[in-house]
Amino acid sequence: MNAIDGRAALGLDFGTESVRALLVSLDSGELGSAVVNYAHGQLTERLPSGVAVPPDGAFQHPGDWLDSAAAAVRQAIARSGIDPASVVGIGVDFTSCTMLPAMADGTPLCLVDRFSRELHAWPKLWKHHGAKSQTERINALARQRGEPWLARYGGTIGLEWFFPKMLETLDEAPHVFDAAEVFLEAGDWFVWQLVGGDASKLPRSTCQAGYKAMWNRASGYPSREFLAVLDPRLANVVAEKMPGRLLSPGERAGELTAAMASRFGLAAGTAVSAATIDAHAGVPGAGVAEPGTLVMVLGTSSCHMLNATVERLAPGIAGVVDGGILPGMFGYETGQAAVGDAFDWLRRLVGHQDFAELGAKAAELPPGAEGVLCVDWFNGCRTPLMDGSLAGAFSGLTLNHGPHHLYRAVLEATAFGLRWIVEVLRESGVPVERFVATGGLPHHNPLVVEVYADVLGAPITIAAARQGPALGAAILGALAAGPAATGLSTAAEAIHAMATPKSGGQARVVTPNAANRGRYDRLYKNYRALAEQLAEAERK
Amino acid sequence: MNAIDGRAALGLDFGTESVRALLVSLDSGELGSAVVNYAHGQLTERLPSGVAVPPDGAFQHPGDWLDSAAAAVRQAIARSGIDPASVVGIGVDFTSCTMLPAMADGTPLCLVDRFSRELHAWPKLWKHHGAKSQTERINALARQRGEPWLARYGGTIGLEWFFPKMLETLDEAPHVFDAAEVFLEAGDWFVWQLVGGDASKLPRSTCQAGYKAMWNRASGYPSREFLAVLDPRLANVVAEKMPGRLLSPGERAGELTAAMASRFGLAAGTAVSAATIDAHAGVPGAGVAEPGTLVMVLGTSSCHMLNATVERLAPGIAGVVDGGILPGMFGYETGQAAVGDAFDWLRRLVGHQDFAELGAKAAELPPGAEGVLCVDWFNGCRTPLMDGSLAGAFSGLTLNHGPHHLYRAVLEATAFGLRWIVEVLRESGVPVERFVATGGLPHHNPLVVEVYADVLGAPITIAAARQGPALGAAILGALAAGPAATGLSTAAEAIHAMATPKSGGQARVVTPNAANRGRYDRLYKNYRALAEQLAEAERK
Repeated sequence: MNAIDGRAALGLDFGTESVRALLVSLDSGELGSAVVNYAHGQLTERLPSGVAVPPDGAFQHPGDWLDSAAAAVRQAIARSGIDPASVVGIGVDFTSCTMLPAMADGTPLCLVDRFSRELHAWPKLWKHHGAKSQTERINALARQRGEPWLARYGGTIGLEWFFPKMLETLDEAPHVFDAAEVFLEAGDWFVWQLVGGDASKLPRSTCQAGYKAMWNRASGYPSREFLAVLDPRLANVVAEKMPGRLLSPGERAGELTAAMASRFGLAAGTAVSAATIDAHAGVPGAGVAEPGTLVMVLGTSSCHMLNATVERLAPGIAGVVDGGILPGMFGYETGQAAVGDAFDWLRRLVGHQDFAELGAKAAELPPGAEGVLCVDWFNGCRTPLMDGSLAGAFSGLTLNHGPHHLYRAVLEATAFGLRWIVEVLRESGVPVERFVATGGLPHHNPLVVEVYADVLGAPITIAAARQGPALGAAILGALAAGPAATGLSTAAEAIHAMATPKSGGQARVVTPNAANRGRYDRLYKNYRALAEQLAEAERK
Repeated sequence: MNAIDGRAALGLDFGTESVRALLVSLDSGELGSAVVNYAHGQLTERLPSGVAVPPDGAFQHPGDWLDSAAAAVRQAIARSGIDPASVVGIGVDFTSCTMLPAMADGTPLCLVDRFSRELHAWPKLWKHHGAKSQTERINALARQRGEPWLARYGGTIGLEWFFPKMLETLDEAPHVFDAAEVFLEAGDWFVWQLVGGDASKLPRSTCQAGYKAMWNRASGYPSREFLAVLDPRLANVVAEKMPGRLLSPGERAGELTAAMASRFGLAAGTAVSAATIDAHAGVPGAGVAEPGTLVMVLGTSSCHMLNATVERLAPGIAGVVDGGILPGMFGYETGQAAVGDAFDWLRRLVGHQDFAELGAKAAELPPGAEGVLCVDWFNGCRTPLMDGSLAGAFSGLTLNHGPHHLYRAVLEATAFGLRWIVEVLRESGVPVERFVATGGLPHHNPLVVEVYADVLGAPITIAAARQGPALGAAILGALAAGPAATGLSTAAEAIHAMATPKSGGQARVVTPNAANRGRYDRLYKNYRALAEQLAEAERK
């Protein structure tokens, strides 16, 4: 089938500070976009009511999401000059796990007067780190009981996830917990606001539920028995406070209500997709529809995502979720905690204003940075060791080494960390056959992709889209609209039609330099050996 | 006894670029000094005849030593205003092993016309690194034959030592080797020039011979059998080309000849001590006469010296020599290859112009630099592992660490390296009871001595003298003059009379902070563990 002429989809990409609206033609690229900041930004010091936020707290204002999105959509429509009625579908990606308690009618608890001064009534932003002890309790109990879901998350669940944040509320503010009629992800809350309906039908994303709330298509959320042992007051929480329908990203959550259509300047009845996580939207946004292609979202940290036709358990993965990224496939998420962040840290450490000199001199060095070896755990290790207490290291340093040696070593270390993840996936039986790089880094830092290709010994395609997650969200919107509205009958057709570069730049392929292969194989062994020593020392 | 009023001693301190002359009263401090550069400096690019020097070569011009010393002595006499006849003794310290071939009458071979274009006829400066393969051959053969002297040098002899440099001449320029009638240390050559006499009586220092030529009071130089296997042409080299008398520093080598007295503006007949190595002169120069006090000469690298009443073999020491530092005691030399050099490297790495900000911020950090651990092998490890191929490392790094964390970690690492040396000596049965710091660093960098005191858990006295080696040489000159001329009957008396601070500044004692003890004990264990991991990785 071919896309129907003159129709478009809308992607809404909710970040930490702002939302981006992107209008995409079903067959000829981007039509217009706009970014609007949240009026309250991140609430990390005080709530709007003046209540102080503790150092590990981070909240948001739910009103900002609707206000900013409406403004961004109106600006994007105006810039593109299109007829709003030509928008056939809306997709939404959101930071995650950003979660909130709400009333059964969707009203966020923090907007109910008597809860406005309660920290735990406010949406907890993904980076809210207040639930440390709760995370430890959940992990310890799951290990003790041998909970089957633990292995799908590489053996450890994360501090930023759904149940830790909810349990923190129960521990710290039981009256808030009691008052909450619904606990849900912010992305799901936003989609619910768009499509309306009562809480029993609120559309929950399999992506958020699968990666952040230990949900699984076959077995659902953690069992009543597990939750009861964790805290008796949690025994019935899934049945009582987590209502809704589980839908994969790209499945239709409903249609835009008249009220919301008016607020956003769109047509009532427009199809809306179930939400997805921002990074995961980068997979369709990078033009990747097929299993076996690792989509590397390279930014301050890196998130590596992959679809597969098989479900396998691999150590230290952030999760494997049926329909977690695209309908009908098992989505794998893995990650590296410090990538662009580590490069930037090194740059500041050596007192450089920018990367110009460092990058040029590092590019001239041979593989191995003339003896300097780095382990890139400057913010802990995600996949495969899932240990935030691990730290970074350099070895092989002599008085002859300069800043560019250390910079190249850090860059190579992140490449070795990536190779380790690929090997862990393959050794677990998950095919990894092709590589696509997206996110900010590949465009700003060509050396990083060259080194990654050399270290992987495989070509890397740099995705053309500079607004990958927003483009991915728009594709999910088109999928939700369905073939009759779009002329696109499958996810692969939609992705290829909408994410193949048009006038906006071509995908570029970086091929490995065969001459460096043996050298990097040896260096990778040295990296693994040093990493193993450091992990061993940490265990003592 | 008390020092005789109005009498003085002269110390001549020969460095790499210049010589320092220091006149010291026998009982009331420094009288005057002068520094004069060598006209030819270091010959590292071309000989005076225009012959190119290879990259690892470094030579000197022997005429410079006499010319510069004569000028420096005349300036110091003039500045002090003393009567030259009041100078009762002359001491000489010199870089080592700086060695040269000469004729039997003392003429350096390089000043014989037909050898002026021969590289190997010129004095090889201590830092000349042309004898790499020769050093390896000597070490390999000594290990294979189980030579008893090897253990006195911690199991390995050095690239810069006497026999490697001589063997290099035999390998590279056998006609130069054949023409040389005497091979000797530059310090010994200089003393020989001052006192005259034929080659059979030329005064050789037990310090240079012991630390750099594997000489031992009981067994002499390496055996004829060993040398014959090394190269048959070396079988008789000790008997035929290494004539002279072995004398400890402070023993009288002879008296100043009339010709030299006239050249230097001193009195003929003035007593002259056997030479010593520059660093070793720092021991009496720091006011240390007794056994059991570690004199830490802290500079670009660090040299830690100690006298003891027992001879013990310890791993990785640079040497133990009977009478090597002062007459009648066993002198131990140990070292760290990068100290001030490592601090300076780190400062440049992080782009700072000076240490002001780094030092101030590092001083505010708690022990352990908030998690950053360093191993200080940026120029290899001397004592105790004696392995130049080892390299430096950092571990425990996170995105929150800045330049001052790394600087403090490097500083602490050198303190841990020092503690390791002290433990190796003690475990080998060599008492180490007190600590004195001298050299440039203690005066420029107060934090380093504070950290060292904390890590050692012992007070450290900072020697007052800023010209320690020259003062030590003057003390040796006074010893050579003898009690009748000085009124000082023992080395200890002379040292206490001449090196106790007068008007020129007091010795300062830095006491350890008891609160840091347990913390540094744990950190030291971590340092040893990381160091062991790195050494293990290197061995693979």
